[in-house]
Amino acid sequence: MKRELINNIKENENARISGWAETIRDTKYMIFIVLKDASGKIQVSIDKEKNKDIVNALDGILQNSILEFTGIMKLSEYVKNGGKEFIPESVKILSKAEKLPLDETANIDTRLDYRWIDLRSAKNNLMLKVQSAFVDGMRSFLIKENFTEIHTPKLIATASESGSDVFEVKYFDRKAYLAQSPQFYKQMAIASGLERIFEIAPAFRAENSNTNRHTTEFTSFDLEFAYIDSYEDVMDMEEELLIAGLTNVKNLYGKEIKELFGEDVIIPKRPFPRIKLQDLYQELNKRYNYEIPAYDIGDMNAEAEKLTSQYAKDVYDSEFIFVTDFAKTKRAFYHMRKDDIPQGFDLIWKGTEITTGAQREHRYEELKKQAEEKGLVKDVEFYLQFFKYGCPPHGGFAIGVDRLTMLLLGIPSLKEEMFIFRGPSRLTP
Amino acid sequence: MKRELINNIKENENARISGWAETIRDTKYMIFIVLKDASGKIQVSIDKEKNKDIVNALDGILQNSILEFTGIMKLSEYVKNGGKEFIPESVKILSKAEKLPLDETANIDTRLDYRWIDLRSAKNNLMLKVQSAFVDGMRSFLIKENFTEIHTPKLIATASESGSDVFEVKYFDRKAYLAQSPQFYKQMAIASGLERIFEIAPAFRAENSNTNRHTTEFTSFDLEFAYIDSYEDVMDMEEELLIAGLTNVKNLYGKEIKELFGEDVIIPKRPFPRIKLQDLYQELNKRYNYEIPAYDIGDMNAEAEKLTSQYAKDVYDSEFIFVTDFAKTKRAFYHMRKDDIPQGFDLIWKGTEITTGAQREHRYEELKKQAEEKGLVKDVEFYLQFFKYGCPPHGGFAIGVDRLTMLLLGIPSLKEEMFIFRGPSRLTP
Repeated sequence: MKRELINNIKENENARISGWAETIRDTKYMIFIVLKDASGKIQVSIDKEKNKDIVNALDGILQNSILEFTGIMKLSEYVKNGGKEFIPESVKILSKAEKLPLDETANIDTRLDYRWIDLRSAKNNLMLKVQSAFVDGMRSFLIKENFTEIHTPKLIATASESGSDVFEVKYFDRKAYLAQSPQFYKQMAIASGLERIFEIAPAFRAENSNTNRHTTEFTSFDLEFAYIDSYEDVMDMEEELLIAGLTNVKNLYGKEIKELFGEDVIIPKRPFPRIKLQDLYQELNKRYNYEIPAYDIGDMNAEAEKLTSQYAKDVYDSEFIFVTDFAKTKRAFYHMRKDDIPQGFDLIWKGTEITTGAQREHRYEELKKQAEEKGLVKDVEFYLQFFKYGCPPHGGFAIGVDRLTMLLLGIPSLKEEMFIFRGPSRLTP
Repeated sequence: MKRELINNIKENENARISGWAETIRDTKYMIFIVLKDASGKIQVSIDKEKNKDIVNALDGILQNSILEFTGIMKLSEYVKNGGKEFIPESVKILSKAEKLPLDETANIDTRLDYRWIDLRSAKNNLMLKVQSAFVDGMRSFLIKENFTEIHTPKLIATASESGSDVFEVKYFDRKAYLAQSPQFYKQMAIASGLERIFEIAPAFRAENSNTNRHTTEFTSFDLEFAYIDSYEDVMDMEEELLIAGLTNVKNLYGKEIKELFGEDVIIPKRPFPRIKLQDLYQELNKRYNYEIPAYDIGDMNAEAEKLTSQYAKDVYDSEFIFVTDFAKTKRAFYHMRKDDIPQGFDLIWKGTEITTGAQREHRYEELKKQAEEKGLVKDVEFYLQFFKYGCPPHGGFAIGVDRLTMLLLGIPSLKEEMFIFRGPSRLTP
């Protein structure tokens, strides 16, 4: 007999089910076990008098053990969980669980030590599935839009972009580094004649900071596409992408998310509001009496991001807002400029920046000049080569998959959101 | 006017097209440019007398430059490429290409130095698209089968499994290592209550060998699923998975693959032939007079793999064959054993092993015993914990995405197949 999912078994039909013993309740005449699998739960009701073999087999078995039962499902008015009750004929102990080393009162560090137990909660299981659905919705959209998936190297020869915050690897008799982003290689793919590419892969940042927003390793959803006319095309693409991801999540898990996280999955309307940084400063000042500090002028900061979301909500009833026209001193050298203004944007969602995107400078001479201006020519020499032998105009952006899920579900920290968190003082499990 | 793909423009309609100048032929009265984009090619025919502005703009422009034309497409009996000809009204130089630093006679090392130019060939562009389609076909199948995508850490605290061949990372004030495979974390996901999971991510091997089959970084397609009855379920899953991948490739690119690589994409029939190692030894001996060397007994080697494919072809007319019943000394400690025989398999395709799969030992005591037997208990202590608090029976496997594409297209080396190859002496571009 094949194993069946609990939610698929039919009344009065023989079935084999298996799953986690979520609770085991031993009463005078009966043992009641709530068995849980990927599809749902059922109460297994064992009559001690009639099922001595089963009772013996279950001796000493603790909750969280994995059990398999054969038997018959009956509908019963005395039972919770949809009124279904499983009357077993036999049991098999698939895995014996010891007493758990933590309970619900455990602090975050203990929970991370036993992450696989922590992840078993209904909320955390849903969180992982939501992330998978979010990514899949976005990816399926790109595949439909003729994007090609690439896999770029994470071991690189030079500390790219900034030079700081890069992990060093012992690479045989020399040094290598871990890629902070696939930016240069995404653009190489464009110079290779692929018009539209994406990658979903780990990125590494050696930032020695222990905040809720920092991690040394995260999953980056990156894309780049050619023959754009301006960064407006890039923003358009991101709108469609996020709508596709959110729609998939809402269809599959919208109800459960509301139940377990209390969050509504809102599908945004296009176009998202777009505002220039200078105009935004004025609005934040006028409406919320907020003045950007001198050292952040030309850029955003955490507080400005929060208020910007407030502004988008108040004025446009939108969860999303694009901010454009940052100062060139605050943007990467490879952002294309027009009248000295970087042709890029940040996207703000739920009080946090989730993307920096831009049209890239694809013209060798201009790009070299901008790299020189930032004192980077030596570091990026190999990258500049990509633009010497023909490269179409292009743009793109990156989204942190973990941050996206965290914001969607209102989870307070990356530590709690990531499958396994990595920070300066956390390398296990 | 929006840019249109070359293959979409219609006769006598104004259009804006852009792409690579594949060839530029300057004759007495005309300039002919073959313009190429993601959809196809078209001849742009410029009458020098009528289009002085265009002629001036094109002065000094070399092939591989990126050009944009507005104008009208006409059908002409004098033109190759489907008889389409583009009569331009204006041109814009989007990117100026220098003379290429290599030609078709360049050796593989020079080609890898300029990989982005090397990848522009029709064959290499197709290769990247085929890999993307192969992966997407397999992944879509898993999503449909209720698998959840996970992202496991690549930075790990201990040198997993073997201890050798692991890259060391400077992790702030201590050492970390790069994961050779997500094996342990895939299993942790199962212990976390997810019944079916997969991951597509880089894996790292510090093997100091320069062969066509070795690379220090590759893309691993990994899956694991619970509540299996035996490793037969795992083989069944892999059959369906590969059929889904190959079907997607054949539908999208079967014809082009035949044209450019001369290879047929064959969709295998289920079930794939399955043979026990001892029986295989006998068959190889009987049919091909092959004797496995003493030090390989209980395992396969490269020559045995080749002959095994021959055997599958000769006897079953199959490109694929599963080999089972390897010796326990030759398999990882975490493979479940029954009567001392590892409950796993290798899958051979086109003369090469593409997968090792197995039912995993999910019972803590047994697993610990098997780890002890291989002298590994200390190294895998954190991993053993995953099985102490309940874990369902499960199994899975991994496939190297690059190797798969290499074999499908008959490409002789990973160097030529990977987007960017990484080896002991190659860290660039």
